[in-house]
Amino acid sequence: MNKVFLIGAAGTKYGKSNLTARDLSMLASKHAIESSGIKSHDIQAAFVANAFGMAEKQGHLGPLLMSSLGIPHVPSSTIEAACCSGGSAFREAYVNVASGFYDVMLVTGTEKVSHLDTLTATTYFAYGGDYLFEGNSGASFPGLYAAMARAHMHEHGTTEEELAAVAVKNHNNGIFNEKAHLQKKITVDDVLKSPVVADPLKFFDSCPFSDGAAAAIIASEEFMNKNGLEKKVSIKGSGRSGGSGSLHTRDNISSLESTIKASREAFGQAGINVKEIDFAEVHDCFTIAEIIAMEDLGIFEKGQASKAVVEGRTAINGEIPINPSGGLKSKGHPVGATGVGQIVEVFDQLTGNSGKRQVNDARIGLTHNVGATGGSCAVHIFERE
Amino acid sequence: MNKVFLIGAAGTKYGKSNLTARDLSMLASKHAIESSGIKSHDIQAAFVANAFGMAEKQGHLGPLLMSSLGIPHVPSSTIEAACCSGGSAFREAYVNVASGFYDVMLVTGTEKVSHLDTLTATTYFAYGGDYLFEGNSGASFPGLYAAMARAHMHEHGTTEEELAAVAVKNHNNGIFNEKAHLQKKITVDDVLKSPVVADPLKFFDSCPFSDGAAAAIIASEEFMNKNGLEKKVSIKGSGRSGGSGSLHTRDNISSLESTIKASREAFGQAGINVKEIDFAEVHDCFTIAEIIAMEDLGIFEKGQASKAVVEGRTAINGEIPINPSGGLKSKGHPVGATGVGQIVEVFDQLTGNSGKRQVNDARIGLTHNVGATGGSCAVHIFERE
Repeated sequence: MNKVFLIGAAGTKYGKSNLTARDLSMLASKHAIESSGIKSHDIQAAFVANAFGMAEKQGHLGPLLMSSLGIPHVPSSTIEAACCSGGSAFREAYVNVASGFYDVMLVTGTEKVSHLDTLTATTYFAYGGDYLFEGNSGASFPGLYAAMARAHMHEHGTTEEELAAVAVKNHNNGIFNEKAHLQKKITVDDVLKSPVVADPLKFFDSCPFSDGAAAAIIASEEFMNKNGLEKKVSIKGSGRSGGSGSLHTRDNISSLESTIKASREAFGQAGINVKEIDFAEVHDCFTIAEIIAMEDLGIFEKGQASKAVVEGRTAINGEIPINPSGGLKSKGHPVGATGVGQIVEVFDQLTGNSGKRQVNDARIGLTHNVGATGGSCAVHIFERE
Repeated sequence: MNKVFLIGAAGTKYGKSNLTARDLSMLASKHAIESSGIKSHDIQAAFVANAFGMAEKQGHLGPLLMSSLGIPHVPSSTIEAACCSGGSAFREAYVNVASGFYDVMLVTGTEKVSHLDTLTATTYFAYGGDYLFEGNSGASFPGLYAAMARAHMHEHGTTEEELAAVAVKNHNNGIFNEKAHLQKKITVDDVLKSPVVADPLKFFDSCPFSDGAAAAIIASEEFMNKNGLEKKVSIKGSGRSGGSGSLHTRDNISSLESTIKASREAFGQAGINVKEIDFAEVHDCFTIAEIIAMEDLGIFEKGQASKAVVEGRTAINGEIPINPSGGLKSKGHPVGATGVGQIVEVFDQLTGNSGKRQVNDARIGLTHNVGATGGSCAVHIFERE
């Protein structure tokens, strides 16, 4: 297995954009290439992560992106695993480079949803769950995550105030991220008084629908050596798991089996334990999701994560910063881009380019990307060289 | 690189179905598993090939399929590359098993479009091209392939009668395929007198919109040996290429660069030349596409393929049978399933299970799957053990 390096990464601003997913993918890819020290013609293959291209009348995005980069012959596929599309696409690129099929690959996640009204967008998102048994019955993601929140409250005594603390912390981080969708400080009171979306989750417990794109470039050690490129960040571990496609079929809904399985695989490959990571970008589509993620990753014991957030232990200057980028909650959630955007944050952090949200002496970073209610999960671990 | 075997493959009947893409994927997967001699819990990872799930309100198909097979923990992603989704998904599964990331993988292609009216379906298909510059201006695939046909006629003197001979031959083959969408004998005269879709292409020059699913299972040599499984078919070569995302940007539109590049990669890996293949399943979405494919693959010299068809050299009992299954033209074209369905035909042929359409002493078979007007191409070469 070849050692694989993350050699470049960049994203567009997340938020409402007048550009198409296609345009956004080009911008992010161009900036990622510029950040990497390679030229576009060094790219040998690519994956595009995208979930809702059809809602914008454009599938098969890869050849359009490759053509715009001047490399139309480069093979590319779109990978979709709902909100885990980005992490899944990155995983497959890692497999291709680690195994020597290619030396250099581009992974670009992109999404455009702001042309849809909220009802249509929520419905499209629900297509990522089990639409027949969930979305079609009105159980879109806010409702499903609300059920998970209720279960977690019941089992572990988690409170709405504790959930709110996740949102407050992530908005605090996002203020320092100029590419964040919601650069706005909020208080626990703001969260608690915001409109109920699906009880107990409120407006400020929920991430926004965002447009945006993010791109990452990975390369083999051989390519790095041959081209005299500086090794900045390496990929230490990659884990990927599935989980039951719908919530009602599970024994337990206050934990995601797919996070547990994917993270153990990634930690095993990296040969490290969770205590060694310096920060993590986790999938906080709703505040409860960040709590569950931290527990399933093993960062905190079950039932302890929400207390840790309230105590500031997951803040940028805390013992284990979680979502220094602002997370999905503040940075935004352009579905196909999200998992790749997490990797952009890790690249910036591990190369010391995160400005006011820089995690002190960040050496090992983890990304955790979830599709739907855990039907898919991808975890990656990166190390500063 | 591990040697990889195709150990099972099966498809549903193609045509109009009352089932969903999800249901169809389950049926094909179940039958593929049964054909392989393994149990579903032996499957370690999966890809689903699907292009239009959103038109049926269901993305993120993998976890639903895995859950239905009793293996919800198994990671899966959807891969989309327009009509090349199936071949692309198979390619990525091959990479994962050849490199040792997994020992056994399932690849299932599935599509449901018959609930859409013809205009809507054609529009959805057009999203696989360059919608901004092509589909949005009325240039859907029939029009684009018509332009390619005109160019081929101009450059090589190809005639409408010769194109019709492709359709007649594929319908002749499809009569012997009980799973074909259009089991109906047609004549050159039928084709020439059928309604013009996009001049010079007529109704019978065009493949149908089909529902259907196809699944294949691949495994590493180590797994085969450990489990005492009979080695029937091995994967000798895999090639994958991109091509310009739109037709108007190309120097030449009577040939697909992506077919040339992907096939040379596959032949190179297999260490064989085109003369050694015994039959091929090629991407005949329109009759002209089969002509261009045979020439780009190197089966015939440029400008010679159409004559060969008229002379019967590509019939099942000819020197190089092309599309013994009936091809997209007669067997049908359920987009996500198509590339995997080609592999099902190869499996059946190389294991001697093709009944009246059996190619005599078939030893090496090739599949050629194209996305859009060649934006993507995947070529695989298989050998009977």
